[in-house]
Amino acid sequence: MYKAPVEDILFTLKHVVGMDAALKKGQLGDLTEDLVDAILMEGGRFATDEMAPLGDIGDKQPARIVDGGVKTPEGWPALYKAWAEGGWNSLTAPVDYGGQGLPHMLLVATLEMWNGGSMAFTLGPTLTIGAVEAIEAHATQELKDKYLPRMISGEWMGSMNLTEPHSGSDLGVMKSRAERRDDGTYRIFGQKIFITYGEHDFTDNIIHLVLARLPDAPAGSRGISLFLVPKFLVNDDGSLGARNDVHVHALEHKLGIHGSPTCQMIFGDGKFGSEPGAIGYLIGEENKGLACMFTMMNNARLAVGMQGVAIAEAATQKAIQYANDRTQGRAPGWKGEGMSPIIEHPDVQRMLVTMKALTQGSRAITYACAHAIDMAHATEGETRRFWEERANLLTPIAKSFPTDCGVEVASLGIQVHGGMGFIEETGAARLLRDSRIAPIYEGTNGIQAIDLIGRKLPQSGGNHVRAFINEIKDVVEEVRASNRPGFGKTAEKLADAVAELTEATEWMLATLGEGKMVEALAGATPYQRLFGLTLTGAYLARGGLADASDGRDDARIALARFTAENLLSETAALKDRVIHGAESLAAARAALA
Amino acid sequence: MYKAPVEDILFTLKHVVGMDAALKKGQLGDLTEDLVDAILMEGGRFATDEMAPLGDIGDKQPARIVDGGVKTPEGWPALYKAWAEGGWNSLTAPVDYGGQGLPHMLLVATLEMWNGGSMAFTLGPTLTIGAVEAIEAHATQELKDKYLPRMISGEWMGSMNLTEPHSGSDLGVMKSRAERRDDGTYRIFGQKIFITYGEHDFTDNIIHLVLARLPDAPAGSRGISLFLVPKFLVNDDGSLGARNDVHVHALEHKLGIHGSPTCQMIFGDGKFGSEPGAIGYLIGEENKGLACMFTMMNNARLAVGMQGVAIAEAATQKAIQYANDRTQGRAPGWKGEGMSPIIEHPDVQRMLVTMKALTQGSRAITYACAHAIDMAHATEGETRRFWEERANLLTPIAKSFPTDCGVEVASLGIQVHGGMGFIEETGAARLLRDSRIAPIYEGTNGIQAIDLIGRKLPQSGGNHVRAFINEIKDVVEEVRASNRPGFGKTAEKLADAVAELTEATEWMLATLGEGKMVEALAGATPYQRLFGLTLTGAYLARGGLADASDGRDDARIALARFTAENLLSETAALKDRVIHGAESLAAARAALA
Repeated sequence: MYKAPVEDILFTLKHVVGMDAALKKGQLGDLTEDLVDAILMEGGRFATDEMAPLGDIGDKQPARIVDGGVKTPEGWPALYKAWAEGGWNSLTAPVDYGGQGLPHMLLVATLEMWNGGSMAFTLGPTLTIGAVEAIEAHATQELKDKYLPRMISGEWMGSMNLTEPHSGSDLGVMKSRAERRDDGTYRIFGQKIFITYGEHDFTDNIIHLVLARLPDAPAGSRGISLFLVPKFLVNDDGSLGARNDVHVHALEHKLGIHGSPTCQMIFGDGKFGSEPGAIGYLIGEENKGLACMFTMMNNARLAVGMQGVAIAEAATQKAIQYANDRTQGRAPGWKGEGMSPIIEHPDVQRMLVTMKALTQGSRAITYACAHAIDMAHATEGETRRFWEERANLLTPIAKSFPTDCGVEVASLGIQVHGGMGFIEETGAARLLRDSRIAPIYEGTNGIQAIDLIGRKLPQSGGNHVRAFINEIKDVVEEVRASNRPGFGKTAEKLADAVAELTEATEWMLATLGEGKMVEALAGATPYQRLFGLTLTGAYLARGGLADASDGRDDARIALARFTAENLLSETAALKDRVIHGAESLAAARAALA
Repeated sequence: MYKAPVEDILFTLKHVVGMDAALKKGQLGDLTEDLVDAILMEGGRFATDEMAPLGDIGDKQPARIVDGGVKTPEGWPALYKAWAEGGWNSLTAPVDYGGQGLPHMLLVATLEMWNGGSMAFTLGPTLTIGAVEAIEAHATQELKDKYLPRMISGEWMGSMNLTEPHSGSDLGVMKSRAERRDDGTYRIFGQKIFITYGEHDFTDNIIHLVLARLPDAPAGSRGISLFLVPKFLVNDDGSLGARNDVHVHALEHKLGIHGSPTCQMIFGDGKFGSEPGAIGYLIGEENKGLACMFTMMNNARLAVGMQGVAIAEAATQKAIQYANDRTQGRAPGWKGEGMSPIIEHPDVQRMLVTMKALTQGSRAITYACAHAIDMAHATEGETRRFWEERANLLTPIAKSFPTDCGVEVASLGIQVHGGMGFIEETGAARLLRDSRIAPIYEGTNGIQAIDLIGRKLPQSGGNHVRAFINEIKDVVEEVRASNRPGFGKTAEKLADAVAELTEATEWMLATLGEGKMVEALAGATPYQRLFGLTLTGAYLARGGLADASDGRDDARIALARFTAENLLSETAALKDRVIHGAESLAAARAALA
């Protein structure tokens, strides 16, 4: 059973991504190390004791449509209530509306633990956080006052309605439409697909945020507006009024996250209300809906990255436990009686250590991103701009690398289990099934790579990314200076990786500068992986360097060394693909005919 | 929908792995190119038209227990009957018992197509082939006469009963027992798990081959005997007699291959018959059961490799079709109106071409292995020994590389589909679910790697593998000599890969020679991947060199080039892991505590 890795999380926050320094400088408000410890320990307890036991039920009892509504798995509505009552929904929400206003890193850390307990469950709360952010940033005061307090307390949940059958990654072509009414409201018509928790039985009301197009809107992505469409209209006294004209039409039958209802939603077909049309309230300005969405897109991407970290952690824990329990064959050097635990076989060790390294690297990257977001909030001027650029740069990597690792680690976890891994009761297979959506939604990892090279590398004329790479070089020097033999060739291998990353980055900047988009795009995904792997090597080395006085220093140094000497060897190949891959790729188009 | 890739298969057989030369030399009996074409075209038609349409049903209607028996998905028993009546079960079976005695490569080629149509369906026939081989090689004439003709015609199917809860990879610890009876028969008692098609409704009788231990047997793997245990006893006149004391207890609930019943079998609990004990007939000698199994193990491993090839092919076809149909965004350079098909996006092209290359490489490796098996049968003396060693060497690679690629390619296929890939109706998700067992069963890919380095490399003192690597070097020279600019840096990159493979091989032989087993085993899996990738590069280059006069030469050359310039860049990292990975891996054991 999954156990929230509170110690690893705290170690990463404190010793790897810079929370300790920020706390000492007082940059994180009233927050103290003790408070961080207390919050995460209590969150870990909830994830381990309350959520994880209900994860399997969510897989075996998929959400289903009953009487026009959605019934979630047994025990989940009560779990949600307990979770919301624990205050977990309001952690980072604005204080003005009842939130606790804590730093983003605490949200990210708890999201990791909730997703480790049950990714399918956690999706609902995750989407609500996004809806709260969009409303807080762009809605009128009236809408904020009416909706935010109850969405932040968890009494109501939110949903995000973007995708349509022909409009996934390219939102500009969506067809849902909105009509103005004289009273300042709008009527919404259209179908949306892939709407996570579009309907459910966790809360009495659901606040849908919906993208739609006004009749006179410009074509494309500049003609999309954002609307707030409650499932039940809300009276001025706060009581629930009439049912709005929006309903769930069907649920998707998915590979994983079965407990999470993925809804086809219909707006304005006249099923409810006196005339067809779901009543909606404009958020932000007309035709500026996409901009409103983008304000929260970065945080949503990081939230999906946490799903990757969580699945990788859960798969690693499960595989290590199985490998300790299961005996088979006799490993070389095994001195015990009978068969050895399979963890003694070098090949099984290779899988497990790889899983561990990718998990820890993914965690560090996402927490570094969260730290950058917090620092951007805590600082001003040039410093703020620096941290904003850091958060921008890290976001596509923090979404893509952990979610790719989630799939890879979950698949390795099945392999460690052998035949038992293919049997659903073991639970290893579910982790692979759940993991597989994360590289896709909230912008496919390919789209993250386009964002990384096209928008993030060019920040400050390329100087931000250069500065970041220089920080990694500092880690190399620190490893060298530490003179700890346990690091083996870590410094040398990490230095090689940094050199590859530098070369690939300069090539990418130059290629983009010359407007050679096909060449640059052909290398985007290998570049993104190269960046993620190098960061993994750097952060694990930084973890090894930290003197945490917890007696695990040697283990951390050994993991950093394994990462550098085994996993980073891939960076040369990745650089090669970035710089030299495009021509042969274009030629090979002929092989797809 | 899957379309059997008959042209690609014929091309690989004729121009890549050496069938054309063997045919010209008359080494394949009466076989002619026309006959090969005719067989594969008819097989392809059956796979495409009859099997593939029933693949999805097998996923949605898992095999289930009804009235103590197993009900397979709708239409499958009829499909099996049509398939057997087509003579497909007898293709390579011995002529003496009604088989057609055709070369192994035809079995492998048809297996690829059946698995492409439905892997879950094809598992049953695949296991029967193994049972026929074991009976033919080791059973008494009486047993052969009684059982083989009807197993070869397809009237009866076979099953292989090896695994027990505590005995998977290590068969030596199994507990099922056999007791001698005065009439020369045995009584079998015990439980088996993971028994593929242990019970079903395809045929009237099922011939179980069962491993069990005699009371006075030596401990470990030298105390295991093999028995033939029919579901229904067979009278001397060939009619079916009493039900034997064996039955299915439960079916496993699996990640994939749902249509295939994976049975828990119980032998000898007294459910059938006058006294407890399933009646069994010894195959081979007492306590030599494992040796009997090993005679067919190699072919079974290759058969599993075909599952990897088939899934990769099916996933690639599906993804290419989707990428041509689905429009989203505007790819750089897109001149058409509106959104471009996603196949125009470089990142999607990268995924698709990678899928294609890994599929073609997997196919070539497996067909080369089949060719070696055929040549070993067709030759004598030193030549025969050469081909036997080649088949031995290729078998673990032909099992592991394609099955790893099957998972990788199926996962990429989901990614190409975006959100639709996660929806079960699309079919891409099923391919990933089905694919995931192949790296596990018939010896995990980690065990294949141990076999490759421990048993296969040392053949002829290492000289066989050295000769094989020299053959790859010849391909490098042929590419150079061809002077075709489309090859780009193929010769250079392939030469690099060969150098890495050579260095890793010599290191491995030396390390094994020094008895450093932990070090050797730590590098076994990266070594196996290094070998598979290098062979992929070599075989695709050989395909590009072939003058097939079919107008696809340029596309094949381009695919070879992409493989060399993009995928082979990984070989340096793999060599590094083989030679330098062990020490850091051993140290990182501490990180698993």
